[in-house]
Amino acid sequence: MKQEFTVSVDAMSGDAGPEIVVGALTQTVLRHPAVRYLLHGDKATLETLLAKHPKLTSHVEIRHAADRVRMDEKPSIALRRGRGSSMWRAIESVAKKEADAVISAGNTGALMAMAMYQLGLIEGIERPAIAAIFPTMRGHSVLLDVGANISTDAEQLVDFAIMGEAFARVVFSLERPSVALLNVGSEEMKGNDAVRGAAQILRKVQLPMEFAGFVEGTDITEGKVDVVVTDGFTGNVALKTAEGTAKLVVEYLRSALRSSLLGKIGAFIASGALQVLRRKLDPRAANGGIFLGLNGVVVKCHGGTDAMGFATGLDMAIDMAKAGIITRIVANRAGVTPVTTETAVS
Amino acid sequence: MKQEFTVSVDAMSGDAGPEIVVGALTQTVLRHPAVRYLLHGDKATLETLLAKHPKLTSHVEIRHAADRVRMDEKPSIALRRGRGSSMWRAIESVAKKEADAVISAGNTGALMAMAMYQLGLIEGIERPAIAAIFPTMRGHSVLLDVGANISTDAEQLVDFAIMGEAFARVVFSLERPSVALLNVGSEEMKGNDAVRGAAQILRKVQLPMEFAGFVEGTDITEGKVDVVVTDGFTGNVALKTAEGTAKLVVEYLRSALRSSLLGKIGAFIASGALQVLRRKLDPRAANGGIFLGLNGVVVKCHGGTDAMGFATGLDMAIDMAKAGIITRIVANRAGVTPVTTETAVS
Repeated sequence: MKQEFTVSVDAMSGDAGPEIVVGALTQTVLRHPAVRYLLHGDKATLETLLAKHPKLTSHVEIRHAADRVRMDEKPSIALRRGRGSSMWRAIESVAKKEADAVISAGNTGALMAMAMYQLGLIEGIERPAIAAIFPTMRGHSVLLDVGANISTDAEQLVDFAIMGEAFARVVFSLERPSVALLNVGSEEMKGNDAVRGAAQILRKVQLPMEFAGFVEGTDITEGKVDVVVTDGFTGNVALKTAEGTAKLVVEYLRSALRSSLLGKIGAFIASGALQVLRRKLDPRAANGGIFLGLNGVVVKCHGGTDAMGFATGLDMAIDMAKAGIITRIVANRAGVTPVTTETAVS
Repeated sequence: MKQEFTVSVDAMSGDAGPEIVVGALTQTVLRHPAVRYLLHGDKATLETLLAKHPKLTSHVEIRHAADRVRMDEKPSIALRRGRGSSMWRAIESVAKKEADAVISAGNTGALMAMAMYQLGLIEGIERPAIAAIFPTMRGHSVLLDVGANISTDAEQLVDFAIMGEAFARVVFSLERPSVALLNVGSEEMKGNDAVRGAAQILRKVQLPMEFAGFVEGTDITEGKVDVVVTDGFTGNVALKTAEGTAKLVVEYLRSALRSSLLGKIGAFIASGALQVLRRKLDPRAANGGIFLGLNGVVVKCHGGTDAMGFATGLDMAIDMAKAGIITRIVANRAGVTPVTTETAVS
C-alpha cells in the first residue's frame, strides 16, 4: 500500500524530549493510519521507547541524529553548528522531498533559521510569519505574525493576509475566510502607515477572502474575523497578553471560590463543569505556531508541550500538507501582483 | 475654611450624561470633603439634578457651558468649533489655575487635542501618553502608552518610563516603582530599535526607579513590574486584547456552568464567590485613562462609565493633584538630561 503522506519529526525537541513524541504518535496513528512518520533523533533512545508500542512499528522509521539544538542556543550558532542535529535533519527530509511536513517542539529561532535556509521562501513572499490559533466567542481565529518579524511594511502585511487566508481555508475548512488588519480603531484614518497601506492594497485586489478592514484588540476574542493580521511585535504582545489574562481570570476564579465555605461547596458540586472550562482554556488544544511562507509545511509546538499538544501539532501539519497550503499561498500571491522571480530572504 | 483642591468636571460628558457625574459626586464628597468641584455644563440641567442632593451644594459650583463635544466628533473639528463646550471650559479652569485637575468621560481624541492646546506639554516631554491601570496577580500595574501615539522612538519611551514612575509613585504609593519595557522577549538583543535604545538610556541614568529591562505580554498580568512601558499602538492592542480575553474566559465559565445541572446548582451555591470574581473583573474599578505629560492633571473616564467608575476617576485625579505628579515628572526628566527650553508639540 502506497502511503500518501510523510511527516518528518524532530523527535529530540521540547522540554520533555522524545517520550511526548512517541506518546503523541500512539494517538495520531489512530487518526491518520496512512501517514508515515520519520523520527529524527537518538536511535537507541527512540528504539527503547518504540519497543513499548509495537503498533507504531509499521508507521515509523527512525533516522539517527547524534545532536540536538538546545532551547537557549542562538539561532545563528545553531545554523552554523547544528547540521548534525535532529532539527536540521528533520527539515532536510522536507527539503529532499522525502517528507511533506516537519514538526518540532524545539528552539523557535533556530527552527525558523534552519527552515529558511533549507526550504527557502515561497516565490513572491518577502518574509515568513508565525501564525497562532486563538480561541474566540465563535470558535477559533488565526493571528499572524506572532513573532517572526519585528517590523513589517504594508506589502508584508498583505503577504500575511494571503498566508492567513490560505491557512484558515485549509485548517478551518472555510469557503471564504474573513480577514482584517489589527489596528487601534476601526476608522479608516487610524493606524500607522503599514496598516493603512496594507488596507489600501487589500481593498483593491480580488482575492478569495472577505476583507473586513480594521479590527481592534477586543475583536480578536470576539471572533469578528477568521484571520487577524499584524506585525510580529504587536502579534507577539497580543498573544502573550491574552495568555496572561486568561491565567489571571482563572486565578481570580480560584481564589473567589476558595474565599468562602459556600464557594468551596459550590465549586465541588460544579467540578465537572469547571473541568470543561479548564479543558477549553487548555493551551495544549491550540498549541504551537505554524510557520507560513516557507517552501514546506513547518509546525512548531510549544517547548513545554505534552503528548496531547504534540498530537494536535501533528494533526495540523497533516491537514496543511494534505490540503496543499503552499499551492494555495502561491495562487493567492499571484492574485495580488504577478509573481516576480526575485525572492528576498531578509 | 480654605478648600485646598479644586477639580474641574466636564459634566456633560459620557454616554449617560450629567446624571452619572452627580451620582459620582455624592460618593466622592464623602471621601474628599475638602475638595471643591466646578461643574461645567448646562446650568438648568445641572441645577435640576443637584436639587435632589442638597448635601452637594456647598461643594460644587456650576459653570454654564451651552455646548458639548459629541463622542464621534473629529478632534480637529472639536478644537476649532468647541470653545463653548463643557469640555473646553473644564480644561480652561485648569489652564487659568482655577482648578488643580480636570476630568471628562467624553471624546478621548478631542480631550487630548484640547488639553494639549490649552495646557501644553511639560518642559522636556516630547509627547503625552495615556496610561491605563491593569489588574495583576499581585495587585495593579500601570501600562502606558495605550493610544496617544502611534509610533514612538527611544527618547519618547524614556519619557513614558519617567511619567509612569511618577504615576505609580503617587497613585500606588510606592517608594521605588519597578519599570520595564514591553518587548517580544526578555533577552537584551530582542526587539526593535526604539525599545533597545530606550533600554540603553534607562540602564545608564540615575532615576528613582528599579529599571527591570524587558518584559513580555505574559508578564503584564503577572505583575512582574509596577510600570510597563510601550508605544501607543502595541499598548492599545494589549489593553483591548486583555479586555476581550477576560470577557471570553467569563463567557466560557458561564457556559460551562450552564452545561449541566450540577454546574447550575454549584453556581447557585457559590454565587457569592462568583460575585467577588465579577467585582474583581469590573472595568469600573480601574476605569479610564490618565493623560500624562501635560501641564495639568487630566483624567479621562470610559465613555460608557457609570457613577462608580466616574467616582474612581475623581479619586485618581485628586490623588494625582494632591501628590504633585507634575513636579515629580519634571524632576525625573531633569534626572535624565538637563531640561531644555524647547518644548516640541507634535
